[in-house]
Amino acid sequence: MDGPNRGTNRNQEQTAKDETMDRQPIVQKVYLVGAGPGDPELLTVRALRLLQAADVLVYDNLVSPAILDCVRPEAQRVFVGKRAGRHTLPQEEINALLVELGQAGGVVVRLKGGDPYIFGRGGEEAEALAAAGIPFAVVPGITAACGMAASQGIPLTHRDHAQSCLFVTGHLKDGALLLDWEALARPRQTVVFYMGVSTLPTICRELVAHGLPADTPAAVVRNATLPDAERLVGTLASLPALAAAAELAPPALLVVGEVAALAERLAP
Amino acid sequence: MDGPNRGTNRNQEQTAKDETMDRQPIVQKVYLVGAGPGDPELLTVRALRLLQAADVLVYDNLVSPAILDCVRPEAQRVFVGKRAGRHTLPQEEINALLVELGQAGGVVVRLKGGDPYIFGRGGEEAEALAAAGIPFAVVPGITAACGMAASQGIPLTHRDHAQSCLFVTGHLKDGALLLDWEALARPRQTVVFYMGVSTLPTICRELVAHGLPADTPAAVVRNATLPDAERLVGTLASLPALAAAAELAPPALLVVGEVAALAERLAP
Repeated sequence: MDGPNRGTNRNQEQTAKDETMDRQPIVQKVYLVGAGPGDPELLTVRALRLLQAADVLVYDNLVSPAILDCVRPEAQRVFVGKRAGRHTLPQEEINALLVELGQAGGVVVRLKGGDPYIFGRGGEEAEALAAAGIPFAVVPGITAACGMAASQGIPLTHRDHAQSCLFVTGHLKDGALLLDWEALARPRQTVVFYMGVSTLPTICRELVAHGLPADTPAAVVRNATLPDAERLVGTLASLPALAAAAELAPPALLVVGEVAALAERLAP
Repeated sequence: MDGPNRGTNRNQEQTAKDETMDRQPIVQKVYLVGAGPGDPELLTVRALRLLQAADVLVYDNLVSPAILDCVRPEAQRVFVGKRAGRHTLPQEEINALLVELGQAGGVVVRLKGGDPYIFGRGGEEAEALAAAGIPFAVVPGITAACGMAASQGIPLTHRDHAQSCLFVTGHLKDGALLLDWEALARPRQTVVFYMGVSTLPTICRELVAHGLPADTPAAVVRNATLPDAERLVGTLASLPALAAAAELAPPALLVVGEVAALAERLAP
């Protein structure tokens, strides 16, 4: 099974020692692979090796074009995302597709934005593969919150300001935001919402209604690790108007907590 | 500034297209770099390039030997961690050292276990560098929780079980665990404690005292992504005794929430 990733192995010979790096061979199975936040340099070494070894690639809109450029040109590409006039393939159909591809054999890479197990629905895909007896492995990726934090100067757990950080989705379910607001509106905690921009005003209002001071720092960031990153920093009170004025397009990340105020100083 | 990373550039020529990957040149500054959870293949491509370009490397015990093997042999190595009979360098001294090395010039890599901005105290180092006017950049890493989740079959935000995940330190401060137990003991949430094993019984007891059912699944994992990984799965009621019987050594991660019960099925 060494053929397809010969290119990467050659690179590893250039490092001081490469035995450790070679420990995990690439074999015929389904790999659920985190693509990270968008910048291809934030792929893991293992993810890049898998992209260059893939026989089949399954991907959606959450993976950036620059990352798709790293995929082995001979790989069969299966797009399961949203396309003009067509919705994303339902999750059940993606699960069934992965089982089918796994049964057919070869190196199957299911590429997912960020990390497969943080809002990636990788858990559902893993369960389907396990239930069907298909060999699979999961490769973690840099989750969007960590990519954003590093590039935007927002240390999520700076001990002067926070003792924990919480990741939550801010997407609507059946038109409503059913969140545990009491858990989200705590002092000394950083909350990162993975969300569409449309719910920003509701989130800011509810956090204040549940006890966070209206002047709590908050930032909204789009495409954090890419050259066209957009960042707005304000407070729970001011941010919704700032985002509306800037006509910020979804998807974006919202960070709430004292650490959001460090952005201007740490990543001017 | 292209000299030291010529080797990596050569590899990028082998990928389908390499323009995007070359966008961020390596220059003379201080890089706060996440080393990920231990497996060198879980370094990001950018982190590996920086290790191979470093003039100076600053590191501590949280970085695995296999990752140190990836560092450019000519790099000056500065160890700031705990050593027999000597404590870790105080954070203030590490900050001052980074400023001094940044002033001296060259490619300075401060390598940190996991992600620099999740319990890595990278925020304090970034603030010191910013205050001194030293150019610096932060490179995110796979945080321990994500590395553990992927390798141990614990999808942190599986939507059948959790709508958020929370990362918190379970280390003692002045002999006590001062945590916001009400925020931690919530339904439909996954909590990952970055901790020493000694606080495990206290954490499990307090979570039950604050309302989580005693049969809430919980797992403790050590060296999750390395060949010598150890995992124990139980409940808040059973886990402390399991860990004591296994004489699990610190540091470890504790995962609390329904998703912990998926481990045996998704990563047997």
